[in-house]
Amino acid sequence: MAARGHGPGGAHDAQVRRLRDLLRSAVLRGRFDGGQLPGEAELMASYGATRATVREALDLLRREGLIDRRQGVGTHVVVNAVLARMAEAHGAADPMADSIFNRRMRPRVLDRSEVPLPAVAAERLGAPPGAPCLRLEYVALVEDEPTALATNYVLFPEGERLLAPPFDSDWYALLREAGLRFGESEFIMGCSAADPATASLLAVAEGAPLITFEQVIRDPDGRPFNLAHIHTRGDRFLFVSRAVRATP
Amino acid sequence: MAARGHGPGGAHDAQVRRLRDLLRSAVLRGRFDGGQLPGEAELMASYGATRATVREALDLLRREGLIDRRQGVGTHVVVNAVLARMAEAHGAADPMADSIFNRRMRPRVLDRSEVPLPAVAAERLGAPPGAPCLRLEYVALVEDEPTALATNYVLFPEGERLLAPPFDSDWYALLREAGLRFGESEFIMGCSAADPATASLLAVAEGAPLITFEQVIRDPDGRPFNLAHIHTRGDRFLFVSRAVRATP
Repeated sequence: MAARGHGPGGAHDAQVRRLRDLLRSAVLRGRFDGGQLPGEAELMASYGATRATVREALDLLRREGLIDRRQGVGTHVVVNAVLARMAEAHGAADPMADSIFNRRMRPRVLDRSEVPLPAVAAERLGAPPGAPCLRLEYVALVEDEPTALATNYVLFPEGERLLAPPFDSDWYALLREAGLRFGESEFIMGCSAADPATASLLAVAEGAPLITFEQVIRDPDGRPFNLAHIHTRGDRFLFVSRAVRATP
Repeated sequence: MAARGHGPGGAHDAQVRRLRDLLRSAVLRGRFDGGQLPGEAELMASYGATRATVREALDLLRREGLIDRRQGVGTHVVVNAVLARMAEAHGAADPMADSIFNRRMRPRVLDRSEVPLPAVAAERLGAPPGAPCLRLEYVALVEDEPTALATNYVLFPEGERLLAPPFDSDWYALLREAGLRFGESEFIMGCSAADPATASLLAVAEGAPLITFEQVIRDPDGRPFNLAHIHTRGDRFLFVSRAVRATP
């Protein structure tokens, strides 16, 4: 059943894709000692690949901005991806000590103001359009690098309690410190290409792939009070999700 | 704190981004009756936006391939996104009746062969490199449209049992029908820009944003036996994830 020859469905392109996927996994999970990839000869031997396949796979990773190749120096990882547990990204679990959600983010606030609740946000939160809400928009910085852009709409009374207090790490720390009760989070996750304004705020090229989240946070009684649209740099953040099959 | 004026951090661009995010949410969740968006005047009134803001927000959605605008006809949704529950995407929950995982996918098999286990896959599965494994690679079709490209590496003995049986809907149906026992699934989720070969197989433009999954499936005893690299069309699939906060 293996496809033959060259072209997008062909055997050569398939070998390149597969090797790229395998190496990409190791790169993003930080599995190469000192961030140095093995040389071409070693990769050819390990993967039973031709030199052309190895070079093209590495070139795809280079074009993705994950590695750098220099004559005489070799191939190095140039990305520092953060793995976040899904439950922490949701804000539903207390962050582990080494987690990015353990006060390792810093916000650059773009907007923090009382605005009338926009129509779609009203539908998502089950509140009347035009009701007062807090709009809090920020770029999340990790080690001073922009990694995500988030626009939050928070119904009152919760929103009112978030207008003034210090906001100095992540969203969940802000909710916690304001004494807001968190019940459940829902994400609708997808991806999109960065528009020019978002690209500029996140310091990526226009068209760069971003992970998109629409989040609705409910209080412990099931009432939704917080809607967020979040755009996350695809080369910075990875999300780890686990699911166990219920035994029948 | 609101940014002023034009430019990427400016007030006008921010209004455009926010309106785009709100409308994008409604478009992807299929919330416009008959797929028809309200006219410019109605959007201006609903969102307190200028005509320029409305037009630029719609233009971003049009460039993303989500809507089409025609003089005299109006603005229509042209995308048909599928929402999948995360537990179903993991294969850890039986699919609901209307789910995409309820036999609504069809695979186009690209490769189904016994190969030596590649190095990174060996590390992920805790098996020796070069051990025999099944490589099963396919494009997942939904209503005859390509939506995802998946490369699976399955250790023996499980892989051996997947070499021959009919594969006619989704991966989890294949595992189930082969009598393989499923314990746990782990995803590392991110996104990337489509390389030329993947773009061609998924019928998207080169550089189009794709959701990437690395999946490891374990048996009920915790032994990993299946690694998959999956690239999913960002304009076709959305994933719904929920997390409830444990009460302290």
